[in-house]
Amino acid sequence: MTERCDLLITNVHAATMDPSLPGAYGAIEDAAVAVTGNKIVWIGPRRELPESTADQIIDGEGQWLTPGLIDCHTHLVYGGHRAGEFARRLGGESYEEVARAGGGILSTVRATRAASAADLYRKAEPRLKALMHEGVTTIEIKSGYGLDLDTELKQLRVARRLAQHYPVNILTTCLAAHALPPEYDGRADDYITLVCEEILPAVAKEQLADAVDMFCENIAFSVEQCQRVIDAAHHLDLPVKVHAEQLASTGATRMAAKAGALSVDHIEYITDEDVAAMAESGTAAVLLPGAFYTLKETRMPPIEKLRAAGVPMAISTDLNPGTCPLGSLRLMMNMSCNLFGLTPAEALAGVTRAAARALGVCCSRGVLRAGLRADMVLWPMESPDQLAYELGALQPAEIFFGGRHVTAG
Amino acid sequence: MTERCDLLITNVHAATMDPSLPGAYGAIEDAAVAVTGNKIVWIGPRRELPESTADQIIDGEGQWLTPGLIDCHTHLVYGGHRAGEFARRLGGESYEEVARAGGGILSTVRATRAASAADLYRKAEPRLKALMHEGVTTIEIKSGYGLDLDTELKQLRVARRLAQHYPVNILTTCLAAHALPPEYDGRADDYITLVCEEILPAVAKEQLADAVDMFCENIAFSVEQCQRVIDAAHHLDLPVKVHAEQLASTGATRMAAKAGALSVDHIEYITDEDVAAMAESGTAAVLLPGAFYTLKETRMPPIEKLRAAGVPMAISTDLNPGTCPLGSLRLMMNMSCNLFGLTPAEALAGVTRAAARALGVCCSRGVLRAGLRADMVLWPMESPDQLAYELGALQPAEIFFGGRHVTAG
Ligand SMILES: [Zn+2]
Ligand SMILES: [Zn+2]
Repeated sequence: MTERCDLLITNVHAATMDPSLPGAYGAIEDAAVAVTGNKIVWIGPRRELPESTADQIIDGEGQWLTPGLIDCHTHLVYGGHRAGEFARRLGGESYEEVARAGGGILSTVRATRAASAADLYRKAEPRLKALMHEGVTTIEIKSGYGLDLDTELKQLRVARRLAQHYPVNILTTCLAAHALPPEYDGRADDYITLVCEEILPAVAKEQLADAVDMFCENIAFSVEQCQRVIDAAHHLDLPVKVHAEQLASTGATRMAAKAGALSVDHIEYITDEDVAAMAESGTAAVLLPGAFYTLKETRMPPIEKLRAAGVPMAISTDLNPGTCPLGSLRLMMNMSCNLFGLTPAEALAGVTRAAARALGVCCSRGVLRAGLRADMVLWPMESPDQLAYELGALQPAEIFFGGRHVTAG
Repeated sequence: MTERCDLLITNVHAATMDPSLPGAYGAIEDAAVAVTGNKIVWIGPRRELPESTADQIIDGEGQWLTPGLIDCHTHLVYGGHRAGEFARRLGGESYEEVARAGGGILSTVRATRAASAADLYRKAEPRLKALMHEGVTTIEIKSGYGLDLDTELKQLRVARRLAQHYPVNILTTCLAAHALPPEYDGRADDYITLVCEEILPAVAKEQLADAVDMFCENIAFSVEQCQRVIDAAHHLDLPVKVHAEQLASTGATRMAAKAGALSVDHIEYITDEDVAAMAESGTAAVLLPGAFYTLKETRMPPIEKLRAAGVPMAISTDLNPGTCPLGSLRLMMNMSCNLFGLTPAEALAGVTRAAARALGVCCSRGVLRAGLRADMVLWPMESPDQLAYELGALQPAEIFFGGRHVTAG
């Protein structure tokens, strides 16, 4: 008896990223993939494919198929830009002079508060399209440039609206605890109360966030303040993530691991005990080499220790107007190799399987496997090592989102 | 009486890069640009525009117009790729182990010799298209992966053929003195004789090169050997360029300046005297931050001294399969700021006015000025600082090549 499916792709090599298959890419050479609805229903060596009929058959022409890419940490919805600040710093002004001239994160907060939802949407579109064009099929978008109830809601609604109009999975994260708004100057605990008692409940009520994030650092919020945010998030049944230990060792990672956080992000300054706590809790590491590069950081995350402990290492753009206005996940794959010493296979795992872990969606995506979403990219390359190695010429030949062809514009 | 032109662009801001105009960008706010044939015939403040009629009028909608970008140093035509080598090094193998396994520049030479001209052309196309898509309207392409007469000619013919099929200016450079081919092992002087007496004359006879380049470094050719190449080039009336002092101080830059070279490229190790010699001879510096990044170099070119001496600083991709497989000139603009400390305006000058100098074509392009080619890019940005600051979302709204609209991609 013959199996029927919607779409059959043959004559491809599959970098499945499935850790149960051998090799760093879980590669299946000369593979076939069958899709019905939005799911993969069969994947394996072509010679083992059961007799099948398909509404559509695609000849992959010997190209490589990978999972759709996942950008698991972005601040993609914001107002304004900070190119002038970039130019002033390169022209020789100090951080203090730039801050006095109105630069820094609060300039983005002002611009985001002042922008209409329609403005924010219109500015976010080309950022999203550029990532989709690279093969990104799942993306996380954080709030955190509002720092008041209305603007946080506005940012998250814009992110949800993008998801309705573009063929891409968007997961939203409320990052109200990103910075202290000027009107709370000297009253950080009071602002955390606003976050916990008003902003997060309102966000949860409108189902505007899939997770809650916070910036735990000496220049932002303390471990104690972040613990209050975690408790409030858990009370609302929302998972948490933490911007942790980018600039100094604070204990944020241990707090996050203890709370069962999906991920800790940046983590340049974590200790051996932190790595052990992450491995124990199953918390993913999110590496952000573009911010490392832009800030000219010198302290690297402890890659060798994370690797040895088996902590999933995700890689993301951190796309934001201050510390990483570089909206290319492929560039981040290259930087994770050149700056952090990851292998090209770890770089691809970082934007697929590990990124799905960092978002808590590894049950549905991040590897090519029967039963998972048919979010897939076909690449005109001879080796999957090329994805981290080169930029420019190598672009997706085809992108499938839930089994449907996507034309990213 | 009313002036007539083919194309009139109004309601734009122009970053002319004309050094005779005030400001780092030579900016004209609320400008108008008139084009007839392939040339700019008038540019200035809109209010000063003479009464004009035009076959086509474009409303720039307040966007910014820049000169078309110029990538003045690429090795874009080559066979094979070196992603496997990249992966082996990241997996922990030493340069020696990689070389023993057949890696390094000679692996590209083998692949380029083995490839047909049609193969090389087909592989080069997506690299060229990616750059054109970023607004590149002039590009230099070097040979240097043949290292024998037939293959050097093959590479240069492919570059010339690309120019016939794509709306882009291509300047070609013969870099036969790039590395010592294996069949000349231990006989570098004999290979230089082949270059001077056979390869360059054949290239000149077929008019396949606009310039001659050489790799003057301890691991490549000596100053004396390069002087022979310079003499041969001058005998054939070809201008020269030199890959100089990337890895050590060798005297190559002084030799090049004395020879009136168009540019010296890399120049991490040049001295104060070298800078003075460049300023004296009018030789441009070509900075290649992508190779610096990929090779994890730590010694920067002497930016402050070049700036003080008024040496034009061009920026280029160095696009090549070994030390910079990153085919994005916009990324290089960003890296020139973040890695070398250039200002965003210097970065734009580096891919326009200074790059034209490095190619000896500043009489026809590199700035927006009446009488020069109408190679222009319209960008949806609020400030030209954004070009070096961000990547991804900011893409050309329109590209004009000799006054004609280009659809790249
Ligand atoms: Zn972030
Ligand atoms: Zn080069």
